[in-house]
Amino acid sequence: MKDDVFYMKLAIANAKAMKGQTSPNPLVGAVIVLRGEIVGIGAHLKAGEPHAEIHALQMAGEKAKGADMYVTLEPCTHQGKTGPCTQAIIKSGVKRVIIGTQDPNPLVAGKGMTMLKEAGLEVEEGICKQEADRLNLPFFHLIQSDLPYVILKSAISIDGKIATAYQESKWITGTEARTEVQLLRQEADAVITGVETIIQDDAGLIVKDSFITQPIRVILDSTLRIPLHAKCLTDHMAETIICTSRMYDQKKYDQLVQKGYEVFVTNGERRTDLQDVLHMLKKRSVMSVLVEAGGSVSASFLEASLVNEAVIYMAPLLIGGKDAPTMFEGKGIKKLKEAIRPADIDYSMVGKDLKMTMRFQ
Amino acid sequence: MKDDVFYMKLAIANAKAMKGQTSPNPLVGAVIVLRGEIVGIGAHLKAGEPHAEIHALQMAGEKAKGADMYVTLEPCTHQGKTGPCTQAIIKSGVKRVIIGTQDPNPLVAGKGMTMLKEAGLEVEEGICKQEADRLNLPFFHLIQSDLPYVILKSAISIDGKIATAYQESKWITGTEARTEVQLLRQEADAVITGVETIIQDDAGLIVKDSFITQPIRVILDSTLRIPLHAKCLTDHMAETIICTSRMYDQKKYDQLVQKGYEVFVTNGERRTDLQDVLHMLKKRSVMSVLVEAGGSVSASFLEASLVNEAVIYMAPLLIGGKDAPTMFEGKGIKKLKEAIRPADIDYSMVGKDLKMTMRFQ
Repeated sequence: MKDDVFYMKLAIANAKAMKGQTSPNPLVGAVIVLRGEIVGIGAHLKAGEPHAEIHALQMAGEKAKGADMYVTLEPCTHQGKTGPCTQAIIKSGVKRVIIGTQDPNPLVAGKGMTMLKEAGLEVEEGICKQEADRLNLPFFHLIQSDLPYVILKSAISIDGKIATAYQESKWITGTEARTEVQLLRQEADAVITGVETIIQDDAGLIVKDSFITQPIRVILDSTLRIPLHAKCLTDHMAETIICTSRMYDQKKYDQLVQKGYEVFVTNGERRTDLQDVLHMLKKRSVMSVLVEAGGSVSASFLEASLVNEAVIYMAPLLIGGKDAPTMFEGKGIKKLKEAIRPADIDYSMVGKDLKMTMRFQ
Repeated sequence: MKDDVFYMKLAIANAKAMKGQTSPNPLVGAVIVLRGEIVGIGAHLKAGEPHAEIHALQMAGEKAKGADMYVTLEPCTHQGKTGPCTQAIIKSGVKRVIIGTQDPNPLVAGKGMTMLKEAGLEVEEGICKQEADRLNLPFFHLIQSDLPYVILKSAISIDGKIATAYQESKWITGTEARTEVQLLRQEADAVITGVETIIQDDAGLIVKDSFITQPIRVILDSTLRIPLHAKCLTDHMAETIICTSRMYDQKKYDQLVQKGYEVFVTNGERRTDLQDVLHMLKKRSVMSVLVEAGGSVSASFLEASLVNEAVIYMAPLLIGGKDAPTMFEGKGIKKLKEAIRPADIDYSMVGKDLKMTMRFQ
């Protein structure tokens, strides 16, 4: 039996499919149902293009009259680039609007619903709310904290190592997990790594075989040790920003700038200031970043409470070694009661690897 | 509908319940069914006491005549302490015998079945074979390798740490996991740890509130650094064996022996020889040992391929720290292709912790 939950899940699935292509706008999906028949589906595809509701209304045409509309996020009331959706919904003759979750902006939350109600439409809210909220964690986070949403990715052995004591790290996880990481990159607006990863692996940090915009590559490099021939500087596959501290090497700075590379100097005295980096990225409309780095950089983000989500793939193998690097290094905590505890963790299998997705508060 | 699998699972469940009390004998369960009615159940309870089949036959009495008997392990044909079960089964009038798995000893495997068949009984084999085999991995291993079955236990954070960089390790996991570890100890005939664990934690290595025999405590201590006031030496709660290398401190040796403590000198030049320790334990009828130690001792066992099974509880927290100890230290591997890969891994939740049970080949 197709019910409210069924239609809302369809709207959510369509919204989710657009991950990586709507930034800085949220993911939104819509479904229109007339007497048990789906007459329109829509999703927001790209910033500057119509909202999900508009696409669905266009598909439904005359059949919108008297229909139910399912929309994952409260319809907007502001003019913006594509006009307010509430007006279009009211005009279409839709009779009932079912909303997944409210607008995250406290200044406008509830306004869309009020406007629809005042126009005589039935409005319901909170169907599949949790899933609807999870669709747009980065978007909600940006509005609430003014910082991009940070996802930390790591691939570890059962004993927590990210490489052997001899620095071999290719590959710990299986092909399925590695393919998924490509998707994580594609869904991010920027990928952050440390200069060590560039020096050790000459990482390209590119989404393979992608036709959509590549995420910005951000290299944390407090003294500017990055090699001038590094792949991420010379391959012209994506934008690259080298972020440094006040301790940077002036000569190397000049060389980099002369070659046209972009260097961003943060206020960090000895280490690149992560808050500065995230603020700079936010100004460039970056909504979500993926941190793909070694144990030191990961520790800096975790210790500064800047990680919103961590995706960890644990491969079914043991590496061992007192000197083998682990996913989370730095100083670490002193007392166990100071341990960093995720708010929730989902466990799932990806090939033979265990995927742990955790969110932090 | 109760079928062969149903009855065999009952026999397996009864066998399993005796874990920790049958050593050095295997776990065996039996069920007798006459025309759809269970008329007898049995399990081997303790070495020197009747086998599972005998208990079940006694319960069934006259009703064994014409009945089906489910037994998790092939019935024995040797005289032993309790007489051959095959003869008792034949005498009882049981008509059909369903066997979980064959006797692991290649010299006698199949003999019980042949004897039953020659007496005119129907015999079936291999119902729930995998579960029947898993019941007695330690017993099978002992017969095949002449070494006790080694289970390594560890409690780790998501990032593989077993303590903070400041050596705090109490407690990483939740109460449920810690209660389960008590059961693991109870099921083992000996518990092995390193002297560091004694020095750091003054670990008692005792099964709390247990009325059955405590496992033997084995301390690996290559130079005899163990404090004379250590709880495991002075509490008289269980037998304790200090195992050392040829590098041991003679003065400390004399002190320990004088106080009546048992010291076992292995052939190890600088480190306690683990093979020697396991052989010594085998001679004392130890069938399974639990290794509960730090990253160095765990690494010695893993690197020597002496671990048959590992039970790892992963708590949902991050500890961090380049200097925080991990569950598997030592030198570790050089190339990823040398990584230690378990033959299989089961994942389950114990409270909020993820339990990973892995077997090695």
